[in-house]
Amino acid sequence: MAQATIVVKVSGKIVNPDNPDTVKGYVSVFKQMHENGLRLVVVVGGGRVAREYINAARLLGVNKGLLDLLGIEASRLNARLLAYALYPYSYPEPPRSLWETLEAMASGRIVVVGGFQPGQSTAGVAALVAEAVNAGLLIVATTVDGVYTLDPRKHPDARLVKRLDYRLLREIISQSSEPGHYELLDPLAITILERSRIPVRIVNGYDPSNVARAARGEDVGSLVSPT
Amino acid sequence: MAQATIVVKVSGKIVNPDNPDTVKGYVSVFKQMHENGLRLVVVVGGGRVAREYINAARLLGVNKGLLDLLGIEASRLNARLLAYALYPYSYPEPPRSLWETLEAMASGRIVVVGGFQPGQSTAGVAALVAEAVNAGLLIVATTVDGVYTLDPRKHPDARLVKRLDYRLLREIISQSSEPGHYELLDPLAITILERSRIPVRIVNGYDPSNVARAARGEDVGSLVSPT
Amino acid sequence: MAQATIVVKVSGKIVNPDNPDTVKGYVSVFKQMHENGLRLVVVVGGGRVAREYINAARLLGVNKGLLDLLGIEASRLNARLLAYALYPYSYPEPPRSLWETLEAMASGRIVVVGGFQPGQSTAGVAALVAEAVNAGLLIVATTVDGVYTLDPRKHPDARLVKRLDYRLLREIISQSSEPGHYELLDPLAITILERSRIPVRIVNGYDPSNVARAARGEDVGSLVSPT
Amino acid sequence: MAQATIVVKVSGKIVNPDNPDTVKGYVSVFKQMHENGLRLVVVVGGGRVAREYINAARLLGVNKGLLDLLGIEASRLNARLLAYALYPYSYPEPPRSLWETLEAMASGRIVVVGGFQPGQSTAGVAALVAEAVNAGLLIVATTVDGVYTLDPRKHPDARLVKRLDYRLLREIISQSSEPGHYELLDPLAITILERSRIPVRIVNGYDPSNVARAARGEDVGSLVSPT
Amino acid sequence: MAQATIVVKVSGKIVNPDNPDTVKGYVSVFKQMHENGLRLVVVVGGGRVAREYINAARLLGVNKGLLDLLGIEASRLNARLLAYALYPYSYPEPPRSLWETLEAMASGRIVVVGGFQPGQSTAGVAALVAEAVNAGLLIVATTVDGVYTLDPRKHPDARLVKRLDYRLLREIISQSSEPGHYELLDPLAITILERSRIPVRIVNGYDPSNVARAARGEDVGSLVSPT
Amino acid sequence: MAQATIVVKVSGKIVNPDNPDTVKGYVSVFKQMHENGLRLVVVVGGGRVAREYINAARLLGVNKGLLDLLGIEASRLNARLLAYALYPYSYPEPPRSLWETLEAMASGRIVVVGGFQPGQSTAGVAALVAEAVNAGLLIVATTVDGVYTLDPRKHPDARLVKRLDYRLLREIISQSSEPGHYELLDPLAITILERSRIPVRIVNGYDPSNVARAARGEDVGSLVSPT
Repeated sequence: MAQATIVVKVSGKIVNPDNPDTVKGYVSVFKQMHENGLRLVVVVGGGRVAREYINAARLLGVNKGLLDLLGIEASRLNARLLAYALYPYSYPEPPRSLWETLEAMASGRIVVVGGFQPGQSTAGVAALVAEAVNAGLLIVATTVDGVYTLDPRKHPDARLVKRLDYRLLREIISQSSEPGHYELLDPLAITILERSRIPVRIVNGYDPSNVARAARGEDVGSLVSPT
Repeated sequence: MAQATIVVKVSGKIVNPDNPDTVKGYVSVFKQMHENGLRLVVVVGGGRVAREYINAARLLGVNKGLLDLLGIEASRLNARLLAYALYPYSYPEPPRSLWETLEAMASGRIVVVGGFQPGQSTAGVAALVAEAVNAGLLIVATTVDGVYTLDPRKHPDARLVKRLDYRLLREIISQSSEPGHYELLDPLAITILERSRIPVRIVNGYDPSNVARAARGEDVGSLVSPT
Repeated sequence: MAQATIVVKVSGKIVNPDNPDTVKGYVSVFKQMHENGLRLVVVVGGGRVAREYINAARLLGVNKGLLDLLGIEASRLNARLLAYALYPYSYPEPPRSLWETLEAMASGRIVVVGGFQPGQSTAGVAALVAEAVNAGLLIVATTVDGVYTLDPRKHPDARLVKRLDYRLLREIISQSSEPGHYELLDPLAITILERSRIPVRIVNGYDPSNVARAARGEDVGSLVSPT
Repeated sequence: MAQATIVVKVSGKIVNPDNPDTVKGYVSVFKQMHENGLRLVVVVGGGRVAREYINAARLLGVNKGLLDLLGIEASRLNARLLAYALYPYSYPEPPRSLWETLEAMASGRIVVVGGFQPGQSTAGVAALVAEAVNAGLLIVATTVDGVYTLDPRKHPDARLVKRLDYRLLREIISQSSEPGHYELLDPLAITILERSRIPVRIVNGYDPSNVARAARGEDVGSLVSPT
Repeated sequence: MAQATIVVKVSGKIVNPDNPDTVKGYVSVFKQMHENGLRLVVVVGGGRVAREYINAARLLGVNKGLLDLLGIEASRLNARLLAYALYPYSYPEPPRSLWETLEAMASGRIVVVGGFQPGQSTAGVAALVAEAVNAGLLIVATTVDGVYTLDPRKHPDARLVKRLDYRLLREIISQSSEPGHYELLDPLAITILERSRIPVRIVNGYDPSNVARAARGEDVGSLVSPT
Repeated sequence: MAQATIVVKVSGKIVNPDNPDTVKGYVSVFKQMHENGLRLVVVVGGGRVAREYINAARLLGVNKGLLDLLGIEASRLNARLLAYALYPYSYPEPPRSLWETLEAMASGRIVVVGGFQPGQSTAGVAALVAEAVNAGLLIVATTVDGVYTLDPRKHPDARLVKRLDYRLLREIISQSSEPGHYELLDPLAITILERSRIPVRIVNGYDPSNVARAARGEDVGSLVSPT
C-alpha cells in the first residue's frame, strides 16, 4: 500500500509493431520498475495503424466520433502488444475506462491502457489515471527530448526548458502554430495535472532507458511541476 | 433507420429528486417525442446530491479524480430517476461510456445517461453522444433562457442572442468571469459540436415544454449552428 | 488463506455525506483491521439520499421494485464514498451481486458493497455475504447500543440484552410494533445467519471504535450466537 | 409499449431434461403467447440436477451460501434448456439479476431466468420480476392443481381454494407442517406480490395448456388477488 | 421470427483499411440485404494488420496463444471498420464469443464479428455462428472464384468445381500442398457445416455484388451442400 | 512471477456430483500444489449431466451449436462444484473464454474452467490455456492409465506407451475406430500442444494422487513431448 505509483505515457509513434526493438527495451525497463516495487500504469497512443483505419473510415463517411473510437481501438491494439510482451507481469486486458483501470490495478500487475474516449488524447488519459491513482509522477515518453521554447525540428535555435510550471507549459503549447507536430500534452491534460499538482517528466521515448532514469528521479528531459 | 436522432442535455439542477413535478413534465415530453418516432438520448447532470458527496469526500482527503467519479455516479442516480419514471419507454440502465451508449441505443428505447469521465462536464458527454449517433440536433435544457451576451443574473442589460455560431459561443463563454455560474457548454463540448457541425438549441429547462418546442423546430431560446 | 474474514454492516444513517467525521473514523478502523490481516467486507445502507430518490420516484408513479432499485443505487453511492476514502486499501467498485462480491474479494482488498436486490435489506446482504465467504463474525453497526428488550427510544425501561440466540432475536424483532424504527436484522437475514451459525455482534455504530473493539473480540454491545 | 406483461414461474420438477415432452408443450404455449403480443418472462426452478450438485457439494464441506449458488446455476441450466428450445423467440442468455433481466427485456424477446440469490426461492425471483416489469399477472405452474386447504397428497379431504387473498395464502402456507412438500410461494414472494397488488394464478404445471388458459384469463386453478 | 438468416465470411485481405472502395461496396450490399428482411452476421478476417502485430510480437518472444489473440483483436478492428461504416444498421460492438454474438443478434441489427479464439480461423467462427443461429446459408467471400481442383494461381489447368459435397471439399483442401495459400475453409469449419448440413456458397469477394447474388440464390462461384 | 504454471484437464466422468470422494481427493491435491507455489488452471469436462441436457434438447429440435453450448454450461457446473469445494483457494467463477481465464489468473488463485466453445473438446480448452499461460506441463487426468497402442478396454493385448511424441499420439488417436471411447486429446489440441512444444502427461484420473505425482515430475502414465 505504501508503494509509489508512476504513470508512463508512451507515444504510439514509439510503441507499435514497426519498432519491436524499442518495445523490447520498454519491456525490460517496465519489468525492472515493477520488480523494484513500483505500481505502474502505461498509456500507449495510436500511431500509424490508428491513422490508417481513421483515413479509410473517413472515406466511408463514418462520423468523427466513430473515427475517434477506431483510433482508440487501434491504440488498444498497441497496448495489447506491449501487455502481451510483458505477460505475466502485466494485466492481460487493456481497460476501456478509468473505472476498469482502477479494477485492473487491484491485481497488482502492470496495467497497460490505450485511449478512453473521443475528443481526448492518450495524454489526457494518462493525466486522468495519474490523478485517480494518486501517482507521484507522470512520465511522458515522446518524440523529442523535452519541452522546447519552439518546435525543435523547425527552429534550430529552440531551447530545451529543463524546469517549468503548468502555466508556462500551457503557454508554450498554445503558442505552437503547428498543433500535433510535436506530441506533448493537451490543455485538458494540463488542467488535470495542475489541479492535482502532479509532477510531469517529459523525456525522449525513443530510448527506453530515459524512462528508467526518470523513474529513478534523475534529471532527464524537462520537469513540469507546481512552482 | 431513417429516424432522426435528438440528444437532450438537462441540467442536474433541474432533473433531481427535489423537482418531481418538473421531472414529470419531462417524462411526458420524452414519451411524446419517442412516440413521434424520434430516437432519443437524454444526458442528465449531477446537481445537489453530486455536490454533497463531493464535499464530504473532499473532507476525507479523496483525490480530485475520485471526487469527479463520485459526482458522475450521482449524475447517474439522477439519470436512473428519469429512466425509471420513463420505464418501459427507457433503457433501464444508464450507460457508463460512449461504447455502452451505442449498445443501449440498439434497443430502440430512450437512453438516459449521466457523466462518463472525470474532467468532463455532462455537456461534454452530450456532445460526444450527439456526434457518435449522428444526431441532427442537441438541445441543452439549462437554467437560463438561452445564450446571453453577459450573465443575465448579474447584468440587467444582458441581451439574449437568438442565433450564433460556435466561434461566438466560445467567445461569450470564455469572457464570462464567473465560470460555472450559468451552465451552458464547456470548450471541449464546443470543439466537438463544431467539428461535426451539430446545431445546438439552448433553452430554459425549468419548463419542459421548451424542449418539446425545440424538438419540433420552433424558434425557442438560442440556436448555435454553423454559419 | 488462513486469514479470518469479518463482515461489517454499517447503517446508511451513519455512513453518508452528512457525517464525514464518522466516515473518517471508519476509514481509520477498517485500514487498521486490514493491516492486522483480517479479510473485510463492509456493507453500507442507503439512508437519507435513498429516501429522497424513493420519495420523488413514488410521486412519479414508479413501481415498488424500481423504487427499491433506486434505494439500492443510493446505498451503492454511500458504499463508493467509503470505498474511495479507503482507496487504495479498497476495491474501487461496489459489487452488485454476491457473485461479483466473491470475485472482488479475490483481489485481497477491502470490498465495500451496498444493496443487492429489491425486497431485501442491506442486513440481508450482509448475512448472505458472511455466509458465502465463511466469515467468522458479522458486526452490525447500528443506531442503538445493541439488542434491547424494547425500543430504547420509546421505553426508558428497555434493557440491553448482552447475549442471545437467533430464536430470541427473531422473537424480539417480531414483537416490535414499530418495524424499521430501530435497525437490526430482518427475518431473512436471521434465517441465513442461523442456518450457518454465524455469530453476530450488534454495536452502536456512531462510534467507529466499537467496531474495532468487536473485531478484537471485546464484549461490546450484544452478541447473537448459537446456543 | 401498451403490451401486457405476464411472468410465468415453472417448477424445476417440471422443466428439466427428464421431461422433454412437457418442455415441448411449454415451447409451443410460450411461442403462442409471444405471437399474441404478450411480453413474457419465464422463471424456472432447479429440480433434480440442483439437488444432485448441492448434495455432492455438502459432502465436500461447501458452505450453505455456495450450495445455494450451485442450485441457482443448475436452475439457470434448466432456463437455458427452455431458452434454447424457444430460440430465436427467446433471449439466449438467462439473466443473473433483476438489473440484467430488465436489460434483456429491452430486446423484446421472451426472457428465461433461473435463480438470482441464495436464501431466495425462484418464486421469490418471479415476484421480484413481476413487480419491476409492471406485470399484470403472475402464473405459478406447480405440481398440484392450485392452493389447497391442506396438502392434497396427504389429506384426501383437502379442498381446492378457487379464490383467495394474500393474507389467506400466507396463512395456509405457514400452517403447512411440511414445508417444501408442495411448491407454492414463500413468505418473501407473497410480501412483494401483496405490496404491489399483483394477481397470481396457481395452476397444475404438468399440463402446459393450463398456463395458456390462465394467460387467456380462464378460471383455472386458484387465483390470489387483492380483496 | 420467420426471417431467413445468412452468415457471410469475408477475407481480411478484402475488408481492411487498404480497400475502402471495396468496403464501401459491402456496406451497400449488406444494407440492401438487411432492408430485404434478411438477418445477417458478417465475419471478417485479420489480414495485413494482424500479420504486422503477430510478426512484431513474435520477435518479442510472445507465445503462440497470445500471438493468435493479437491477430483476433486485429480482425476485430477490421470488423469495427465495417460495423462503423454500416452504422446505425449494425450492432456497434464486435462480439467476442458465440454467446455475445447471440445476444447482439437479439437487437435485430447486422452483427459484425472477427475472430473468437486461438487455433481457429475466422472461417471456423463463421461456421459456428451459422450453426447456432440456424443460418440457411453461409457465403464465403474469398480471394478466388470458388473451389478449384488445384490452386488456380499455380495451376493454369485448375478447374472450378461448381457443385460439391463436404467430403469432396475436405479432400481438395487436404490435398493442397500450400496450406493457407488460398483461403477457403479449415477442417473444423467443414466438420461443423457438415454435421448441421449448412450449404456454403464460395465466391470471389473482391466484387461485393457476388455476395448479393449468392444471397439471392444465383449460381455464382461454388456451392457446397449435402448430397 | 518465476512460478511454474501447470494446467490439469480432468474428465467430466471423474469430477462430477456422482463422485464426491474423488472430488475431495482432487481438492486436497490441488490445494497442496497451490501451497507448493504452483500456478494452477484446472479444466473440467461435462460428463453425465451434459449428456442429459444435450439429449433432452436434441429431442426438442435444438440445433447442434446450441446443444454444444448446453454441454459447455454443464461442464461449467462441474467446474463450479470443484471451484466451490476449493474456495477460497479458487477463483469463484469459471471463466467463459481464454480472455477471461487470463484475467482470472491475475488474482493468483486456482482457476477452474469448463468448456469454451462448440465444436471443441475441453481437452482443446486445456491446450489453449496451457499455451497462452506458458504452462510447463499439461496433465490429462483421464479414464485409462495412459496412451495405449489400442483401446485397452477392447484389446487385452493393448500396450501402454510410456513415452511418445505428438506425431505418434496423433497417429494412435486417428487409428482408433471408436472415437470418444477413451478420452485423450483431439487433433486440434494436439496441433496446439505441438506448435508450442508443451509436454503432456496422461494419467489415470480416478486416483487424484496420480496428478500430484505427475506434478512432482514422477514417471506416471504416458508422457507426450517433443522428440
